[in-house]
Amino acid sequence: MFVRRASEVPSEPVGAGEGTTRQVLIGPDEAPNFALRRFEMRPGGGMPRHTNAVEHEQYVLQGRARVGIGDEEFEVRAGDVVYIPAGVPHWYRAEGEEPFAFLCVVPNQPDRIEVLE
Amino acid sequence: MFVRRASEVPSEPVGAGEGTTRQVLIGPDEAPNFALRRFEMRPGGGMPRHTNAVEHEQYVLQGRARVGIGDEEFEVRAGDVVYIPAGVPHWYRAEGEEPFAFLCVVPNQPDRIEVLE
Repeated sequence: MFVRRASEVPSEPVGAGEGTTRQVLIGPDEAPNFALRRFEMRPGGGMPRHTNAVEHEQYVLQGRARVGIGDEEFEVRAGDVVYIPAGVPHWYRAEGEEPFAFLCVVPNQPDRIEVLE
Repeated sequence: MFVRRASEVPSEPVGAGEGTTRQVLIGPDEAPNFALRRFEMRPGGGMPRHTNAVEHEQYVLQGRARVGIGDEEFEVRAGDVVYIPAGVPHWYRAEGEEPFAFLCVVPNQPDRIEVLE
């Protein structure tokens, strides 16, 4: 059991991304079934088209971005919910003036990121 | 795969709570491993001390509340992360002027709420 401030959790750059950082808010070693992470992307930054071996359940906290999932594109902003099934190609490009930040929940299962371009 | 606005998801009262509503943002029938819900409590409202059969991974979106977990009490506010293991008694009391809102992720496993007082 714990309570922690997200802003005090260390952030690390995401290698495959550009201007993208990740914080592990609740790690796979802290809870039995899934991990809670927070991503932040500076305007113009993002992640290239890629797949993961696990699904993503996401909630946008601030900012806005263009997001591609499969063959579709979406404009997302604070208050949007995004579901990306395992194995579906997806990408992000942060837009606007402020950083784009979202929560991303993944199961505690082995993941592999494969960049597609 | 989908994108939806949280504000457009129907909300329902939580029977065991007071002034408390729940929205199922990503349901157990929509994703394989866990469900994403949003709870909102009006100031003065909340949930009595209870246990669940499943763990909670939570992120506070707005407002503030007094939260009891096990034998401890916390003041939480927007940007706080809360982890409540399965079976640990917990309660909420929304404080301040605006509604207290948080995300709560639970595994797709049978749950049972037991109110303790």
